[in-house]
Amino acid sequence: MSYKNFPMVPRVIFGRGSFNQINEVLAPKRLSIDAPFIFLIDDVFKSNAWLTSRIQLAYGDRIIFISAKEEPKTSQVDALVEDIILMSKDRPSGIIGIGGGTLLDLAKAVSIMLTNKGEAKDYQGWDLVKNPAIYHVGIPTISGTGAEVSRTTVLTGPEKKLGINSDYTPFDQVILDSELTKDVPKDQWFYTGMDCYIHCVESLTGTYLNAFSESYGNMALELCKEIYFENNLSNIEAQEKLMMASWHGGMSIVYSQVGIAHAMSYGLSYLLGTKHGIGNCIVFNHLEEFYPEGVKLFKQMMAKHDIELPKGICANLNDTQLDTMINVALSLVPLWENALGDGWKKIITPDKLKNLYLKM
Amino acid sequence: MSYKNFPMVPRVIFGRGSFNQINEVLAPKRLSIDAPFIFLIDDVFKSNAWLTSRIQLAYGDRIIFISAKEEPKTSQVDALVEDIILMSKDRPSGIIGIGGGTLLDLAKAVSIMLTNKGEAKDYQGWDLVKNPAIYHVGIPTISGTGAEVSRTTVLTGPEKKLGINSDYTPFDQVILDSELTKDVPKDQWFYTGMDCYIHCVESLTGTYLNAFSESYGNMALELCKEIYFENNLSNIEAQEKLMMASWHGGMSIVYSQVGIAHAMSYGLSYLLGTKHGIGNCIVFNHLEEFYPEGVKLFKQMMAKHDIELPKGICANLNDTQLDTMINVALSLVPLWENALGDGWKKIITPDKLKNLYLKM
Repeated sequence: MSYKNFPMVPRVIFGRGSFNQINEVLAPKRLSIDAPFIFLIDDVFKSNAWLTSRIQLAYGDRIIFISAKEEPKTSQVDALVEDIILMSKDRPSGIIGIGGGTLLDLAKAVSIMLTNKGEAKDYQGWDLVKNPAIYHVGIPTISGTGAEVSRTTVLTGPEKKLGINSDYTPFDQVILDSELTKDVPKDQWFYTGMDCYIHCVESLTGTYLNAFSESYGNMALELCKEIYFENNLSNIEAQEKLMMASWHGGMSIVYSQVGIAHAMSYGLSYLLGTKHGIGNCIVFNHLEEFYPEGVKLFKQMMAKHDIELPKGICANLNDTQLDTMINVALSLVPLWENALGDGWKKIITPDKLKNLYLKM
Repeated sequence: MSYKNFPMVPRVIFGRGSFNQINEVLAPKRLSIDAPFIFLIDDVFKSNAWLTSRIQLAYGDRIIFISAKEEPKTSQVDALVEDIILMSKDRPSGIIGIGGGTLLDLAKAVSIMLTNKGEAKDYQGWDLVKNPAIYHVGIPTISGTGAEVSRTTVLTGPEKKLGINSDYTPFDQVILDSELTKDVPKDQWFYTGMDCYIHCVESLTGTYLNAFSESYGNMALELCKEIYFENNLSNIEAQEKLMMASWHGGMSIVYSQVGIAHAMSYGLSYLLGTKHGIGNCIVFNHLEEFYPEGVKLFKQMMAKHDIELPKGICANLNDTQLDTMINVALSLVPLWENALGDGWKKIITPDKLKNLYLKM
């Protein structure tokens, strides 16, 4: 028996307004005047001086605005890396991701690919990364994905949607400033928060669970219930608590795994480009059979917040498309094993998945 | 407003039997054949082959057994550092502390003092350490202190009992193997677990609290209640959960502080050498006025586990001795501020403390 030696984010700042400390945090990490800091920022913050004016650019530092409308791709990582290498005199001093899961995952992947040869798709999997990434900082502006603390960066490649899981993936520094989440639209707030809720349900009911992951999962789940169900917090309290729920939810996966909703949502995302948060919600809504308690509460929270999920998204797919989606989902073996144990193949057949997808 | 950039333990292994991985963890950290690993181990494990036979000593590696009967002292750190320097060909590759809070704090302090000039007492305080410590590993064999995750190492010096609080203090690696706690005597199990319970109560009711520390504190407190009050866990479950409670309890102090029990317990420890865990219990038992709910549950847990605290430990002290104790306690300003806010001096007078101490 060998247990994972988990790499934790070695530095974290938590506090309302702590984004103001960004320049102070980065200054000692500048390697030279030729080694810039590259800020990858969600393009919803373009022309938002409230955020961007606080970043002091010096020497060759750059802000690159990136749309998070689509899930991050391996080709997008490769293009960013090429652009950064061409435009920088020297290897960057650091990559700073500011945004949701998409931007955080791009920042992690770019920082890895700046020091590792080849293409991002070559590293999708477990422990394939050879060299340490360059210094990278994560600053979430929406809460729920757990990307700020996780050991993976989930990318859609030409063949699969799969993370670059490695000891070099986690951020070197995270800044948790709940004020940055104040303008998140309500539907996104719900879908992304539910990403946290759903992965806690999957982790806590899974076969991989141990006392480490259970304690983090319970904490995150309780916070989600307080925020989305009991619903008697001030806005600021709710934003701070959701930021912590996301953090603990990410930690709960350390010695555990996600489950059926994530596996099937990856299928949707691969074929239809469905964003991760809403994709999880669409799938989870039909998983009473596997997560009865969790789905019941999920439906109550949807009702409470007047959330309407899209319907019939798979209705017009042909058999080839459905098979592609089913194959992507079935390829995520650890997720199924965690959810259903060793005998998962007897419970989950391609037909079973097809019927489930057709309901969505 | 500036928020602390908290250094987290960057590597953690959790799992029953994970101590077996110690050699594999250390091997890549060996700097040279002249740079030994020094194991500081609680002397209760002397002649305990079950533990010690799993450590593969090579080159100049050494085990130093240390009694944890007394609280760790700055002079003890200085003596250990001198001994290690004299006996090692080169600066050690790492210091590995195996034991409870005393051994873990000694390992942290020794690893700092091997790279920083002068005496350990010079560094008691906040952020006085100049140079990074050498690689140090913490392996708790009793749960509750939070020393495995904290940013301090609490030492009794010639003038004060105070921690070396610094960014270089936290361990580089922690191994959380609950099996190492299986033979802890019942009274120590109670006192040390209550250290966690008490610092959670102090943190959660304090004025410094924020959402980060609150979420960790709540999690640790719930685990303590499950272990000591509800009491329907198997031995292994209880040991694993207490290990996590200690970890989360330590994290809850990140953006918070302990309070009155710790301040007064430091006084007892400085004058009478009272060990930290039992000292906290002796003090907390008389703090209904400040922590009504917390003390009520504490008394119920004591009753449930047939714990008898020593009585009258201050009865025979003279005024000079009482004053010394009171001065040590009152010097811990952040603890009082956290417990009672800015106006704490109006509530806590030397006379008030004297009356409290005389009850104990």
